[in-house]
Amino acid sequence: MPGNSFGQMLKITTFGESHGEALGVVIDGMPGNLLVNIEDLKKELKRRAPGQHKVHTARKEDDLPEILSGVFEGKTLGTPISVIVRNTNQKSEDYSKLKDQYRPGHADRTTTQKYGIRDYRGGGRASGRETLARVIGGYFAGLIIPNISVYAYIEQIGPYKLKNHPQDHKVDRGEIGIPDPSLTKEVITFLEDCKTKGESAGGIVSVSILNCPSGLGEPVFDKLKADLAKAMLSLPACTGFGLGEGFGFANLLGSEISSQSHFFGGMEGGISNGEQIHFKLAFKAPSTVGENAKEGRHDPCVLPRVVPVVEAMAKLVISDHFLRQNSYVPFLP
Amino acid sequence: MPGNSFGQMLKITTFGESHGEALGVVIDGMPGNLLVNIEDLKKELKRRAPGQHKVHTARKEDDLPEILSGVFEGKTLGTPISVIVRNTNQKSEDYSKLKDQYRPGHADRTTTQKYGIRDYRGGGRASGRETLARVIGGYFAGLIIPNISVYAYIEQIGPYKLKNHPQDHKVDRGEIGIPDPSLTKEVITFLEDCKTKGESAGGIVSVSILNCPSGLGEPVFDKLKADLAKAMLSLPACTGFGLGEGFGFANLLGSEISSQSHFFGGMEGGISNGEQIHFKLAFKAPSTVGENAKEGRHDPCVLPRVVPVVEAMAKLVISDHFLRQNSYVPFLP
Amino acid sequence: MPGNSFGQMLKITTFGESHGEALGVVIDGMPGNLLVNIEDLKKELKRRAPGQHKVHTARKEDDLPEILSGVFEGKTLGTPISVIVRNTNQKSEDYSKLKDQYRPGHADRTTTQKYGIRDYRGGGRASGRETLARVIGGYFAGLIIPNISVYAYIEQIGPYKLKNHPQDHKVDRGEIGIPDPSLTKEVITFLEDCKTKGESAGGIVSVSILNCPSGLGEPVFDKLKADLAKAMLSLPACTGFGLGEGFGFANLLGSEISSQSHFFGGMEGGISNGEQIHFKLAFKAPSTVGENAKEGRHDPCVLPRVVPVVEAMAKLVISDHFLRQNSYVPFLP
Amino acid sequence: MPGNSFGQMLKITTFGESHGEALGVVIDGMPGNLLVNIEDLKKELKRRAPGQHKVHTARKEDDLPEILSGVFEGKTLGTPISVIVRNTNQKSEDYSKLKDQYRPGHADRTTTQKYGIRDYRGGGRASGRETLARVIGGYFAGLIIPNISVYAYIEQIGPYKLKNHPQDHKVDRGEIGIPDPSLTKEVITFLEDCKTKGESAGGIVSVSILNCPSGLGEPVFDKLKADLAKAMLSLPACTGFGLGEGFGFANLLGSEISSQSHFFGGMEGGISNGEQIHFKLAFKAPSTVGENAKEGRHDPCVLPRVVPVVEAMAKLVISDHFLRQNSYVPFLP
Repeated sequence: MPGNSFGQMLKITTFGESHGEALGVVIDGMPGNLLVNIEDLKKELKRRAPGQHKVHTARKEDDLPEILSGVFEGKTLGTPISVIVRNTNQKSEDYSKLKDQYRPGHADRTTTQKYGIRDYRGGGRASGRETLARVIGGYFAGLIIPNISVYAYIEQIGPYKLKNHPQDHKVDRGEIGIPDPSLTKEVITFLEDCKTKGESAGGIVSVSILNCPSGLGEPVFDKLKADLAKAMLSLPACTGFGLGEGFGFANLLGSEISSQSHFFGGMEGGISNGEQIHFKLAFKAPSTVGENAKEGRHDPCVLPRVVPVVEAMAKLVISDHFLRQNSYVPFLP
Repeated sequence: MPGNSFGQMLKITTFGESHGEALGVVIDGMPGNLLVNIEDLKKELKRRAPGQHKVHTARKEDDLPEILSGVFEGKTLGTPISVIVRNTNQKSEDYSKLKDQYRPGHADRTTTQKYGIRDYRGGGRASGRETLARVIGGYFAGLIIPNISVYAYIEQIGPYKLKNHPQDHKVDRGEIGIPDPSLTKEVITFLEDCKTKGESAGGIVSVSILNCPSGLGEPVFDKLKADLAKAMLSLPACTGFGLGEGFGFANLLGSEISSQSHFFGGMEGGISNGEQIHFKLAFKAPSTVGENAKEGRHDPCVLPRVVPVVEAMAKLVISDHFLRQNSYVPFLP
Repeated sequence: MPGNSFGQMLKITTFGESHGEALGVVIDGMPGNLLVNIEDLKKELKRRAPGQHKVHTARKEDDLPEILSGVFEGKTLGTPISVIVRNTNQKSEDYSKLKDQYRPGHADRTTTQKYGIRDYRGGGRASGRETLARVIGGYFAGLIIPNISVYAYIEQIGPYKLKNHPQDHKVDRGEIGIPDPSLTKEVITFLEDCKTKGESAGGIVSVSILNCPSGLGEPVFDKLKADLAKAMLSLPACTGFGLGEGFGFANLLGSEISSQSHFFGGMEGGISNGEQIHFKLAFKAPSTVGENAKEGRHDPCVLPRVVPVVEAMAKLVISDHFLRQNSYVPFLP
Repeated sequence: MPGNSFGQMLKITTFGESHGEALGVVIDGMPGNLLVNIEDLKKELKRRAPGQHKVHTARKEDDLPEILSGVFEGKTLGTPISVIVRNTNQKSEDYSKLKDQYRPGHADRTTTQKYGIRDYRGGGRASGRETLARVIGGYFAGLIIPNISVYAYIEQIGPYKLKNHPQDHKVDRGEIGIPDPSLTKEVITFLEDCKTKGESAGGIVSVSILNCPSGLGEPVFDKLKADLAKAMLSLPACTGFGLGEGFGFANLLGSEISSQSHFFGGMEGGISNGEQIHFKLAFKAPSTVGENAKEGRHDPCVLPRVVPVVEAMAKLVISDHFLRQNSYVPFLP
């Protein structure tokens, strides 16, 4: 079973190697008649793009999305939407020295073990570059659920932790996704320092979802929390998912949590209860360190660029379950 | 899209309400000719059964599995295996008072919001009782991958934490799943105390998988970590998943992790690398507390009974990916 | 990929060998709150049951459906409905002589080639007996689309052909599914004669669907005609599917068909257009002939018993597409 | 559930409107290390292309496939292969007059009923042009099963019927897919005449598959015949599928067929038995007739161009089932 599709009613299929011709996505299951704004899509892609700040990889990518199908006269047709982004950074350089290099913590070795072949010019499908296809998918998913607000922010990078969590979705997340200007400054200095030293850092992303209707999620395997966990753990470098208090629940007694519904993370029995959904994600530091990491194209930390990707994946999960539940709404008493 | 099936090549579909006629599972995609030992299956079910220890719910269930199909003369046929377990604890008591009671933290309210109806006699599909169907599925999944060893254990319940993690899969996990006799005693006393007080506790389960071949998992959405996360978060009360160091990665620099492959949790790029797979799971305390919780049928903590369920889900994920990868093995150079 | 499930939003999974403990079905994706009438279900099963007429196999089966889940207080819960039917005809006789017999035209040999093992006591999963699980599924599917009428009838058995096709769905189809009393008589005599001689016959079934809303079916692979064709060709002995004029279209010029929409079979571009859907199915004569066929349990012709199965499969397809389209209805202008 | 994907282990997802930017396909589930020959792919596309003969639409399309992903250094990577073909025939002409025209027998009206919107410049997804994406998919599917030979040919167009069926797959099918030079001439004359008159014709295609291994197909819903039927009925204008004798079985007694295995069409119980697979397909005459049909871009008959598409769909089905069965082969005794 190939693993390049995600979703049931709203399904994205992504394709493309990091150093191939193009990356792309097919979004199948979109309703018709939704207004498409290409500038909004570009804005989302720009949030994920490298080179937004000097802590980011210096590689300049012109991530220009080209819509090949499914949109006509500015509206969705209900047919599959295909969007591609050309890889403009392919160099004529000699990649052959990379042919037999398996970078630890990357998919180089395991890809070869799996397929017996790999595109050794880069990370192939395992590259973070694949996530731009998810951002495109997330933009279209958002058109289905315009009233639902998804907001992700960084709450920790390396030793730097956010003290006050934002109370609503209007709080500015600054240059790198941290809703605190002074912490942002400290983290940027820290990351610049990492870059100089060939060091890298991990961290934690928080996600809040407002206005999600109740009843989304299926009671057994396709619980909303289960599908969100899969969505997030499918991201490169993501190593942890926690709903509500997450691992903090290990230290809480039943009497402490039973009457405070905010602890439930917006779900009961894995089905949305209409309250705020919140969960956290852990990301590990990039495995590339030392001299290699000092080269321009390596990020010392994935979190600043991962924030819009996390939001995209959340929108894809919620939209999918929204469409799934739609089928049964006419039968509700 | 209904959500009662899990897996691609090896797929289980579970059915049954906690207070209905029976619970059951259909396991589709089993190879033929595998030897089935009903006693081994019963042993697995017994590990999950209530009443194993006095900290467990006193409700005595005779979880007798009946194989209805797919097994002939002690061997799998390759056809769907269906196993049911009758619910023998249905009482003739008056459940009508429960009709309009929505227990916080349970699926009572959200189920009604979703379907407009629910079986108010118990937790319905959201009941922990559903997990016995998963244990049955896990038993059969294990027949496909007999060389792979899956071992889960409790590393924390409430304030009690395991100090020394077991070094192999032979370490006895005692009565309640803790590989440390003295900690076991303390925890039992703690849980008995919880029961007396109408209190409840959460905790953390660790999972180790040995001898998993490399190459399992798909590079993008169906990463092994993603499918494991979904499997585990689909369990009632599970609130967190962490691969390798999990959320601990937030505090580790790249230089600390890049050269120590054990940190990767047995995967690179989401594909198994042939090393030990390890991950952790958080479970919250049961929401039922106070006077209600003092009644016999409520567990003060789900962890002791969840250990075999976690192992079953892990086997289902690994077996499924094993069969998926099988298709491509003949094409490897 | 296991092949024992059918449908997307409404999905049935069937299980059970013809000579095993039980046959059964899990119906996943049912809306909640639909009234279930067990007597109606039994009526449908009785239409398919053997022994309705002396041309049928003499084997008396008590096909008593037992609902194990998904129905509470006479209503669907929205959870998976599981129904089993015990096999009561298992005999203590010696089946070992059948162990190495591969009956031509049956799945005996191919099942062994596929799985390396088979339940040699009968046809296993390939037995016509499996279709009773489909009839159960069809009954529940029908609850979703109560306004849609599905009506199948026999238009040919061996050399006997129906002259006047019924004009509506009220026409009585008599004992064996033929809407013509005198033809019914002739065919019964013919089939009795076949039985006596150890001969068997095939034929053609016509299906008419009224009140199907427009817009069902997906434009490319999941066209309504494609899913209906798959549903029908998945029936044992079914060898042909023809939409509208079917193979008769080969002899019609564009000018003859373009202005007569009834030729289109109720679909344009594979999507229902709101008109009557009609298609035809070919079934071959049972491969068991000669002395073996004279034994009681062999039908000389599958068509009389296949009529309710065909209707069930059609209802499953239509209901599934109805639920699929439901998701998008709120987005229609 | 979107309907633009086909297959389980080998899955194609097609996209693109006939008058949009491009058509394309994502082929997911390809094994790695298979040699790709772009010239062979172009040859297949050319067989389907218009303008091969003057009975074909005069519209000249330059169907140049561009591989965007999944192929590296001439070999498959095991990752999704994406191929697009630009639509070069988009004209700057005024399509607005077509906006409210619903051509009978086309998907114009039903698409609008389904989505509330359509790309009125052409047939959108329902256009025969979509089938070029299938041909691309079929080319890659063929790489998986190089020893299996799929051969389709026309056996009837309008009143012209093939008398002698080809005995092997080497027989030349001439300009339009008919393995008989003199019949080819007659049919060309007939079709030219149709074109002049604004008339159109349907017909029958036969398909033969050699060297298919036994054991492909699943015993219940995913029978090989069922998946082939779905594949073929998903083609525009396809109205009938017949396995082996197809509807001819209605006139054959059991004694006539039971001993002649060629009648079974290469399957028993829906599973391939290692013998020649053969089936027939009916296609209806294009609905466009009269003055409109005299315009260059309309084919008077779809059959000549449909032959390679039918072969592609057959290869996709067989390859998919081949990969599915691969998973279980290591468990065979």
